[in-house]
Amino acid sequence: MTGAPSELVLAEHRGPVLVLTFNRPAKLNAWTDELEDRYFALLDAAEDDPDVRAVVVTGAGRGFCAGADLQRLQTVGEIDEVSEADRVRRRPRDVPRTLRKPLIGAVNGVAAGLGMVEALYCDIRFGSPSARFTTAFAQRGLIAEYGISWMLPRLVGHSRATDLLLSSRMVEAEEAIRLGLLDHLVPTGSVVDAAAAYAADLARRCSPASMATIKSQLSNDADGTYADSVARAEGLMLQAFRGSDVVEGVTSHLERRLPDFPSLPVRSSDVPV
Amino acid sequence: MTGAPSELVLAEHRGPVLVLTFNRPAKLNAWTDELEDRYFALLDAAEDDPDVRAVVVTGAGRGFCAGADLQRLQTVGEIDEVSEADRVRRRPRDVPRTLRKPLIGAVNGVAAGLGMVEALYCDIRFGSPSARFTTAFAQRGLIAEYGISWMLPRLVGHSRATDLLLSSRMVEAEEAIRLGLLDHLVPTGSVVDAAAAYAADLARRCSPASMATIKSQLSNDADGTYADSVARAEGLMLQAFRGSDVVEGVTSHLERRLPDFPSLPVRSSDVPV
Amino acid sequence: MTGAPSELVLAEHRGPVLVLTFNRPAKLNAWTDELEDRYFALLDAAEDDPDVRAVVVTGAGRGFCAGADLQRLQTVGEIDEVSEADRVRRRPRDVPRTLRKPLIGAVNGVAAGLGMVEALYCDIRFGSPSARFTTAFAQRGLIAEYGISWMLPRLVGHSRATDLLLSSRMVEAEEAIRLGLLDHLVPTGSVVDAAAAYAADLARRCSPASMATIKSQLSNDADGTYADSVARAEGLMLQAFRGSDVVEGVTSHLERRLPDFPSLPVRSSDVPV
Repeated sequence: MTGAPSELVLAEHRGPVLVLTFNRPAKLNAWTDELEDRYFALLDAAEDDPDVRAVVVTGAGRGFCAGADLQRLQTVGEIDEVSEADRVRRRPRDVPRTLRKPLIGAVNGVAAGLGMVEALYCDIRFGSPSARFTTAFAQRGLIAEYGISWMLPRLVGHSRATDLLLSSRMVEAEEAIRLGLLDHLVPTGSVVDAAAAYAADLARRCSPASMATIKSQLSNDADGTYADSVARAEGLMLQAFRGSDVVEGVTSHLERRLPDFPSLPVRSSDVPV
Repeated sequence: MTGAPSELVLAEHRGPVLVLTFNRPAKLNAWTDELEDRYFALLDAAEDDPDVRAVVVTGAGRGFCAGADLQRLQTVGEIDEVSEADRVRRRPRDVPRTLRKPLIGAVNGVAAGLGMVEALYCDIRFGSPSARFTTAFAQRGLIAEYGISWMLPRLVGHSRATDLLLSSRMVEAEEAIRLGLLDHLVPTGSVVDAAAAYAADLARRCSPASMATIKSQLSNDADGTYADSVARAEGLMLQAFRGSDVVEGVTSHLERRLPDFPSLPVRSSDVPV
Repeated sequence: MTGAPSELVLAEHRGPVLVLTFNRPAKLNAWTDELEDRYFALLDAAEDDPDVRAVVVTGAGRGFCAGADLQRLQTVGEIDEVSEADRVRRRPRDVPRTLRKPLIGAVNGVAAGLGMVEALYCDIRFGSPSARFTTAFAQRGLIAEYGISWMLPRLVGHSRATDLLLSSRMVEAEEAIRLGLLDHLVPTGSVVDAAAAYAADLARRCSPASMATIKSQLSNDADGTYADSVARAEGLMLQAFRGSDVVEGVTSHLERRLPDFPSLPVRSSDVPV
């Protein structure tokens, strides 16, 4: 079914929006190191591509991502511990979460275990009626992996997170939107288009520099105090006042036209992160 | 339209409840330094007025507050940076948030940008069907100002906060109550009366000292650990046991009558804050 | 009505599930030191009983728990301060919250004040249509006790928590599930059975070691940073890979049968907590 590594994740440019598709449909897009390498490489390229202003990620076929490929997990008992620890530690987990551009999930089917974690790394999630989530870990004798025990309570509240992590029960789309696992629920068949339309709107209306700064603020403030947040915001606001985006943002608003914001500079620059 | 500074924010005493009204209706109550000075001065006076037990804040006309007056923002490129930094830093942003008395928002229309921030500084928000919220910052080339990137995820969850901050999309009243931006949604035309009735109930039934202490606990605990919270609560509970409010609170409850709690002492006192 | 201390909290084993029932129905199960001693002793025994995999707690009669017995509170003015401080400090408040096994609340009626705190110490809450919650503290001249000012915002969001703590208003079951005070709402008369069925499902499908580890992760991560969470999860995942539960969890899943996980070792062991 899939041959070259480049086919493990498909990439399609739709104007300023890059749509990435996990592409192991016969395995419900189960996660492998090769798929991860490809996904992260595409995100890394998108980061510095001035023509990409937002990224959408979805799954081919019926699933979003069924989690770590069980073929591998079944043999963990035989894994050499030192090399496994080494393997786990050298993998750059934080690529999706540190992307400076909006990452929009288009959850088309099941997101299980690590697949649910990857969905939660997205800034915002659209779902179709067939979107469903399960943490899966407790039923497999595993633990809450890759920060999900930190993320999930901050998304849906402490008690609901405990319910989902202990029971591993399946959460269907209707409940997912009520709990806050999904931000937007759209009709069957339209989830990628809806997410891409939302992403195109961000590209058209919102300052790339503002979005990158706000993402960094949200990330810092999740771990910081209110006083630190206010102090940081004060500095960032004064910095924004020195740039051209605020003039264009205010002027275009008063003139009732779309703004024309510049693309985000590449990463060696002095943009606040 | 508005003349003296005293008319920028109207003040009306309704028994123990002070109702404040942003009063630049022709500008959707857009924020200016003068309006802020007046609002904060009124809150400051309410703080030490023994006859005020709770405060309601709303907007005159169709809007709650449209945010910073754009006339000013449009010229930020020309602002002298040092004096602007100085101006920003000397303004006492934290007056609404550190009020020891309940501050109830009566959101009657649009709350945008800084206007949304001011709505979020309220302890609790009532909304009419015409209440609506937009962060606005990313569309103006700005950043998440005045602590909103810290507050919003703690109100509505991390992902919904990201959605609202990146997209600047308008959230209508029905969605606002579902997300937790509004706590109570009431029929058209009744939002000030409903908020004032709630505030009067706090004034009638709840100990002013208890409410001040609980506000300080919520503020501290938002930035602190569970262990610190429990240790602090233990000390505060023993302190409450030494006061008269607990005897009156329990006795009035057993006698099925309204309690008669004393007003909050003025600020130089030893009330825990 | 109740005689021996052992009858203050009833204990019933339903297979791997222990059902505990507060049993002062004529007093709506109001909390006393003796009831607390009995409840905590039963939880302590359950902790090290290999046949108990999950615990359900409910109230006899119409209430879940009406809070601290007011007979005692009415006399707090006469309490010797030093001995009271000593009494408060020596009581082991954290027994329910540190239980390594799932603690499921079956909220059958009113949970008020300390009774609401005890409900919130449960990992997950089922409620009947007659479940209702009130913080009660501000109306009694008290403060937000025992960590509720830390817990409640993390369950329902900061603003809703403020609403409930300042007003002490009664929250009925329908609103409780919308806010996240309840996780599951079930028909009248079935709340204990529903909670016990859920608990039995945890016992049947989920690894006791995984659940204990995940509970400790959630507890640590509530106070910690994302980076710490990820680092801790990495170590715990590698540790899980060395155990037998992950092999059984994956194998049973692939063989489409129920897993056969061992019970949690007693507390002197090296299970991560």
